[in-house]
Amino acid sequence: MEIIRNNFKDHLNKVYEAIEEADFLAIDGEFSGISDGPSVSALTNGFDTPEERYQKLKKHSMDFLLFQFGLCTFKYDPTEAKYIMKSFNFYIFPKPFNRTSPDVKFVCQSSSIDFLANQGFDFNKVFRNGIPYLNQEEERQLREQYDEKRSQANGAGTLSYISPNATKCPVTIPEDQKKFIEKVVERIEDLLQKEENKSLALEPCTGFQRKLIYQTLSWKYPKGIHVETLETEKKERYIVINKVDEEERKRREQEKQAKELEELNDAVGFSRVIHAIANSGKLVVVHNMLLDVMHTIHQFYCPLPEDLNEFKEVTTCVFPRLLDTKLMSSTQPFKDIINNTSLAELEKRLKEMPFNPPKVDSAEGFPSYNTASEQLHEAGYDAYITGLCFISMANFLGSFLSPPKNHVSARSKLIEPFFNKLFLMRVMDIPYLNLEGPDLQPKRDHVLHVTFPKEWKTSDLYQLFSAFGNIQVSWIDDTSAFVSLNQPEQVQIAVNTSRYAESYRIQTYAEYVEKKHEEKQAKRKLTEDSWKEMERKRLKTQCTPYVPQNRYYCVNSFTATSTTGKRSMSPIQEETGSDDMGEGEVQDAELDLTDSCVESASEGKKKVKKFKKVKMEQAPPGNITSSSTELFEVPDTW
Amino acid sequence: MEIIRNNFKDHLNKVYEAIEEADFLAIDGEFSGISDGPSVSALTNGFDTPEERYQKLKKHSMDFLLFQFGLCTFKYDPTEAKYIMKSFNFYIFPKPFNRTSPDVKFVCQSSSIDFLANQGFDFNKVFRNGIPYLNQEEERQLREQYDEKRSQANGAGTLSYISPNATKCPVTIPEDQKKFIEKVVERIEDLLQKEENKSLALEPCTGFQRKLIYQTLSWKYPKGIHVETLETEKKERYIVINKVDEEERKRREQEKQAKELEELNDAVGFSRVIHAIANSGKLVVVHNMLLDVMHTIHQFYCPLPEDLNEFKEVTTCVFPRLLDTKLMSSTQPFKDIINNTSLAELEKRLKEMPFNPPKVDSAEGFPSYNTASEQLHEAGYDAYITGLCFISMANFLGSFLSPPKNHVSARSKLIEPFFNKLFLMRVMDIPYLNLEGPDLQPKRDHVLHVTFPKEWKTSDLYQLFSAFGNIQVSWIDDTSAFVSLNQPEQVQIAVNTSRYAESYRIQTYAEYVEKKHEEKQAKRKLTEDSWKEMERKRLKTQCTPYVPQNRYYCVNSFTATSTTGKRSMSPIQEETGSDDMGEGEVQDAELDLTDSCVESASEGKKKVKKFKKVKMEQAPPGNITSSSTELFEVPDTW
Repeated sequence: MEIIRNNFKDHLNKVYEAIEEADFLAIDGEFSGISDGPSVSALTNGFDTPEERYQKLKKHSMDFLLFQFGLCTFKYDPTEAKYIMKSFNFYIFPKPFNRTSPDVKFVCQSSSIDFLANQGFDFNKVFRNGIPYLNQEEERQLREQYDEKRSQANGAGTLSYISPNATKCPVTIPEDQKKFIEKVVERIEDLLQKEENKSLALEPCTGFQRKLIYQTLSWKYPKGIHVETLETEKKERYIVINKVDEEERKRREQEKQAKELEELNDAVGFSRVIHAIANSGKLVVVHNMLLDVMHTIHQFYCPLPEDLNEFKEVTTCVFPRLLDTKLMSSTQPFKDIINNTSLAELEKRLKEMPFNPPKVDSAEGFPSYNTASEQLHEAGYDAYITGLCFISMANFLGSFLSPPKNHVSARSKLIEPFFNKLFLMRVMDIPYLNLEGPDLQPKRDHVLHVTFPKEWKTSDLYQLFSAFGNIQVSWIDDTSAFVSLNQPEQVQIAVNTSRYAESYRIQTYAEYVEKKHEEKQAKRKLTEDSWKEMERKRLKTQCTPYVPQNRYYCVNSFTATSTTGKRSMSPIQEETGSDDMGEGEVQDAELDLTDSCVESASEGKKKVKKFKKVKMEQAPPGNITSSSTELFEVPDTW
Repeated sequence: MEIIRNNFKDHLNKVYEAIEEADFLAIDGEFSGISDGPSVSALTNGFDTPEERYQKLKKHSMDFLLFQFGLCTFKYDPTEAKYIMKSFNFYIFPKPFNRTSPDVKFVCQSSSIDFLANQGFDFNKVFRNGIPYLNQEEERQLREQYDEKRSQANGAGTLSYISPNATKCPVTIPEDQKKFIEKVVERIEDLLQKEENKSLALEPCTGFQRKLIYQTLSWKYPKGIHVETLETEKKERYIVINKVDEEERKRREQEKQAKELEELNDAVGFSRVIHAIANSGKLVVVHNMLLDVMHTIHQFYCPLPEDLNEFKEVTTCVFPRLLDTKLMSSTQPFKDIINNTSLAELEKRLKEMPFNPPKVDSAEGFPSYNTASEQLHEAGYDAYITGLCFISMANFLGSFLSPPKNHVSARSKLIEPFFNKLFLMRVMDIPYLNLEGPDLQPKRDHVLHVTFPKEWKTSDLYQLFSAFGNIQVSWIDDTSAFVSLNQPEQVQIAVNTSRYAESYRIQTYAEYVEKKHEEKQAKRKLTEDSWKEMERKRLKTQCTPYVPQNRYYCVNSFTATSTTGKRSMSPIQEETGSDDMGEGEVQDAELDLTDSCVESASEGKKKVKKFKKVKMEQAPPGNITSSSTELFEVPDTW
């Protein structure tokens, strides 16, 4: 179902309903660009840490616009043993809703635009009829303005008809306008004195003259008249003055307020869908999701935090349960039987043996997608096939149970190991960004950091390391790269033999990290004061879960109840293979958590916050990492 | 006529022809945004100098995309006493033409996009079918690459079939690929040995494998085979190897080169239209042109120079003769009888008395615009009515001649005073940016520069200066503004009375300028070295007029021949009124300059450069300014 500005309000309840009844959601975004960085290779170095990758994407990818958002809701029908799907394709555009609203600027990348154009993407629909949005801070400010205006209007009444463009300062009436204004005042005196006259329409005049009229009347006639600006057919603006008693004035005021409140809600626009997803606490499935998640938060929730750990906290607020189908398909038991994890190829592969094509029908009144005639890179379609991929893979896990199960629900313990881990593209040895704690820290004891003159090419590095057999080069910038050797033992040899080299410099990965850390510390010390200032700011913008006025959910209850033992779990382990999976107790653990978690929002929030503090602190990185890296087998191809 | 990527090449000769036969051209651009500055008021301060305005626009407006370019050519038909008009509406988009071409990023401003969307602008046409372009430097680089490739191909032949994606370094064949490559080599040996076999199609393989194959074959078989990559219906890429003799190989090579040259010309795309306009030397008419001119140069010619004087030089290269209809209509004799100089209003006004609606017909095969059903903000339409405005105003000047003339040509001396002066929006006392020499320097002896706490509003300033009657406030930023008083004599009083004020500071405009100049000098001294470096760079990017391969024009002959006396001329003077205009010799001065100026480009270039040096130096700013300000009466409303 296509949702644009014109039909958004009519369909919003349908969207809410679909989210509420769903077993899981799948989403996808289309952007006006991917990266404004120097080059893709610099943006995605094979040895990026999750922190570095986050910072790079934050710096180089957030000025683009997420302008199409696909949402597919999947609800399982046990009697028919199939999923019922509702798909929504939202067109998004930050249309300024009035003259003082933020005028968003966004970047377009020609290659991305050209790519979408070739897929038949409808830019006119985005720009002419995209749904507006506000992030939480913008919404808060607007509500504050609205409240302030309302309280003023309810007060002395002196400000009941301030000019829509009123700046806060009164304007001195210039000499050449004094006569004009005097004339207007005369006519109003006339209006007020003659009982038979009810209203007075002034001739069209300039914006400045209207400003002067508003200002004069608001001061001279705080009560008894109602002033408004109308437009002629020729789009000329003119002022109409109505004689009103106090009751009539209040009625008009209330009418105006109701209209303003509606405009405010319209301005929040698409962000309301994101709030609904956040508050549903439902599992959200995305393919290769890091950019989609970052954009969604950045555009509809709050500016991305400075620091990766804060980003993890915010993400957990907006998406309490995430599953990345690219990560899942790159992990055992799928890794060995799936070669290509790009979305289109994955969808095709997961229809074939040993997988079963999932049974999914569109809900009544919702259009159905045909996977044979691909509509790739329409966000709604991509969300749809992401959902299909998840269903196929989840059900496949059921085949390892004894007795085997054909259907594995979105609430099954079987899929929990894949939760809240975001696939990291083109990172060689860290498969995912872990939202629920510290990230993996591979040893990288076979990696060297090399600095060299900017004339050097990959071939120069091959030559330099020719004695060490096969190497892999990951460029950092013009004058440095990581070089990984086959055997960690060779690392020290390489460093030693290069000690007296003049044109280049080799250090171990550990040395490189340490030096970088030292530099950071030194820098931090230098700017201690400004740092403290930033810290204060950071604390101010700390994420607070979105709480709508009448709908309370326990957004983080899932995370909270399923923590025990999560630390020791990792995505299905190759070492133990599929045999371990066929345990009865796994089945028993399938709980319907969402039903039991309705509680007051304030209680829920407190719990979540407390839990998170504990979670982030409970385990020092070292412990977790060593066990996790052992358990998690890194895929060969990314 | 709508020109898009698909029909651009077919219509290019029509465009050239229209430019060549025209008496004058009118242009207009539509952009993806106007300003990414903090606010419009900060971007256009009423007391900006032309240099400041240029720097602001350069900094805050050039990241937007000029994505629609309107060109209207007007040719006078004396037998019918009417103009024949050809209008072209070009859609522009920097589609990357291959994988290594620049991937342009551009900014969109929501308010501008929303505005165009409301006018029915077709974004799909821009993004799906916009004409690409290159600036001169990009074109030069591309031609160099092409020449290099061609000379290599004509050389030893060893590089005749390098991979299209070849990076400059050879890749070591990894262990696991060695067998694969050996097999390929075996099959080629087989192909070469058996006479009956002419060609060999390998199975589809990965990009890396293809790279290895190209690399191996180019080294092992420098002659005797031709290697190319083709695509199956399923878009899988595979390599085909053909046995060829030297003659056949050359034929294929030439075919390929011809295709590459065509691709190169396609990539230059729309810039060819700008080159044609530049080389025609024709009068180019634009309404409120500063942004259009800057964008056109920036996008299709060269990055905008650091310094305003260099910008003036470059502009004279690209547009030797410019006329701004907004400036013309804001100047006497039009100023007093034209209230609103916005394009749409101006066009309407210039159909009424004392003006005559211009007689203009569309050329055969060209669509006609109907000014009754406005298509405002389509670039082609805006260019069209800009042309109409110019014709009306030019003809009106003819009514002052004795005997009066109904038609005043684009080459008439009567319109020369308006040449090469670009309207400056919202500058109070400098009506235009002068391309032909130093800019006006009004005294501003009634202007104060005030610094104050950032809490201050306009009303605080009104209060502060309440003793001085009416003032005008021009905000610079949060904490400073220019305040202009009614009488220059009050300036010193204001400064004196404020000497002991603590919260604010008042200085005269002259003091402000001097201090700013001193600061600049100090800064310059500090960074002397980096400055010198920049200067070196600046000299390198000095503008050189575009010289196409087979078409030589004397682009600057007009400027060169019409210099004498230009210094003392200014737009029609109010003081002397219209009486002075009715001289017979003005009529006689109508020369057909364009016919007499065909000469070799190199000669032309030298002349222009010499002339420009003289022009910029001949008169110290002071002299010119004082006489010009006297002669030129500043319009009241901007």
